[in-house]
Amino acid sequence: MTKQIVLKSRPFGIPTADNFETRIVEIPAVAEGEVRLTTKIVSVDPYLRGRMSDAKSYIEPFKMGEPIVSGLVARVTESKADNLNVGDYVMDRLPWQEEMVLTASGLQKVDEKLVPLSYYLGILGMPGLTAYFGLLDIGKPQKGETVVVSGAAGAVGLVVGQIAKIKGCRVIGIAGDDAKNDYLMKELNFDAVINYKTVENMNAAITSACPSGVDVYFDNVGGEISDAVVVQINKGARIIICGQISLYNATRLPVGPRIQPILLKRSALMQGFIVSDYADRFPEGFKALVNWVVSGQLKYTQTIYHGFDQLPEAFIALFEGKNLGKLIVEV
Amino acid sequence: MTKQIVLKSRPFGIPTADNFETRIVEIPAVAEGEVRLTTKIVSVDPYLRGRMSDAKSYIEPFKMGEPIVSGLVARVTESKADNLNVGDYVMDRLPWQEEMVLTASGLQKVDEKLVPLSYYLGILGMPGLTAYFGLLDIGKPQKGETVVVSGAAGAVGLVVGQIAKIKGCRVIGIAGDDAKNDYLMKELNFDAVINYKTVENMNAAITSACPSGVDVYFDNVGGEISDAVVVQINKGARIIICGQISLYNATRLPVGPRIQPILLKRSALMQGFIVSDYADRFPEGFKALVNWVVSGQLKYTQTIYHGFDQLPEAFIALFEGKNLGKLIVEV
Repeated sequence: MTKQIVLKSRPFGIPTADNFETRIVEIPAVAEGEVRLTTKIVSVDPYLRGRMSDAKSYIEPFKMGEPIVSGLVARVTESKADNLNVGDYVMDRLPWQEEMVLTASGLQKVDEKLVPLSYYLGILGMPGLTAYFGLLDIGKPQKGETVVVSGAAGAVGLVVGQIAKIKGCRVIGIAGDDAKNDYLMKELNFDAVINYKTVENMNAAITSACPSGVDVYFDNVGGEISDAVVVQINKGARIIICGQISLYNATRLPVGPRIQPILLKRSALMQGFIVSDYADRFPEGFKALVNWVVSGQLKYTQTIYHGFDQLPEAFIALFEGKNLGKLIVEV
Repeated sequence: MTKQIVLKSRPFGIPTADNFETRIVEIPAVAEGEVRLTTKIVSVDPYLRGRMSDAKSYIEPFKMGEPIVSGLVARVTESKADNLNVGDYVMDRLPWQEEMVLTASGLQKVDEKLVPLSYYLGILGMPGLTAYFGLLDIGKPQKGETVVVSGAAGAVGLVVGQIAKIKGCRVIGIAGDDAKNDYLMKELNFDAVINYKTVENMNAAITSACPSGVDVYFDNVGGEISDAVVVQINKGARIIICGQISLYNATRLPVGPRIQPILLKRSALMQGFIVSDYADRFPEGFKALVNWVVSGQLKYTQTIYHGFDQLPEAFIALFEGKNLGKLIVEV
């Protein structure tokens, strides 16, 4: 018997605890080729909000009454498979369940001696790879250019800003909390930061922080924050649409200024992507990120909730902007 | 003494005849290295509307009291330059003026025996090159893909649709006139057409015309027509922002559905451009277009106004959708 957390109802607007339900389920015995896993660390991510709705997207919606699935590090506690031993750790997209029995063949083993295990869900996992490919492949930042990142203190934003610094850019972070912005300035050497919640005039703040305009905008949030950045892009600018967290809980079609005339006048590019578009290049990204982490060029921070039962609360906290860096739950 | 047409006042909304003024000006004698030109054909283009406003754009606004400048073919009537003889024709961006004296060195000579002279302002000029680079370089249409073009019967749209057919795509044209749409279907072999003015449900019309969704959208018009196309793009779609004629006369900031969430969910690209971004590749584009025209693979049509004084009226007609193909004025 083990606990799992399932989708009880589809959120309307901001998710609440009522949208989730904890259930006790049986788990089968371990058969040949299978392993038993105990969940150690679970990733909660903004994109999961999309899967909780029943709308067409890049990935199937979660089914009602079935467990939420996200990135997860688990320990092998029983093995009838050649490729995994008891005590090994694996990382994969797996259900929110304390224990589970799975076929071993597809599971990705991770090295707990190289970096802390949680890094495989963050800077060396989906968020790190998202930052790496989005910024470098779409944004193509050049030395001396100005890079603006929204959601700058989030799991992806922190990495984007630091890679942009490594590439010799002027980096401006937008976040909604002075403590987060202090961290970006003092620990990560951002060139300027804007607190979108307290700033009086967002357009004036962007102008002041970006005296040479904006060459690359890595957009994690969308909405009015992005409206203020987009009007200040330079000729040939690149806008990377990575997330739109300000719109994920919208209950009707969001409306805003039309951006096509700006893209036209500035010969600018706007490109959406999901990290799996780059699946065949993950080894390249992973290698680069590991090197930067090990050499100390990339710093990493995370916000940790404790206990399996905290998963829904941790997820909801994402939309309140409570996390600095990657939000994870240690079970 | 010669006639010129100057900007008398900046248009508010749709331009009117009052925004223009005809003046009589002196022209100097021809000095060493100069030629005297007589204007033969003048191009009127939607993008000129942007230059009539006093807003930041990719190109300087026209100055009040100075002549409008656009693509123009002129005949050399007197020459004190080595590179041009009387009877030669040149094409360049030149002022709306019946006669003028200019330095010969920068002028581009065109061959009146290869194709009709007006082609140099259309299919072999800025509109043709715009279609060529926008569609092929940004849109990258692949055989079997679905390409939608708005403003399909305009100077650029006609060429876009035909090149997409040459590349083996399914091509859907959107225009606002049944006679234009008949031309697209019968003469240019488009696969489907939509009359946006008479169609009852634009979304349903797109669904019906694009059963496999939209892979490439070449957008000349913007606004609500484009809204209906963009919601039906496929994963990995490319949207080329070439023009936004529906918004050029907007008197306040246009608002519409936010498209970033769609670009995100479909990993889609939206790119604005202006043909001069490709200036160093014009010879490549010109050569390809000439070959298709001469071989008959690219057909060409135009709408012709007659008389220098008709220039303002011809320009205003662009925004009433009166032209099939390139709109020119023969002087």
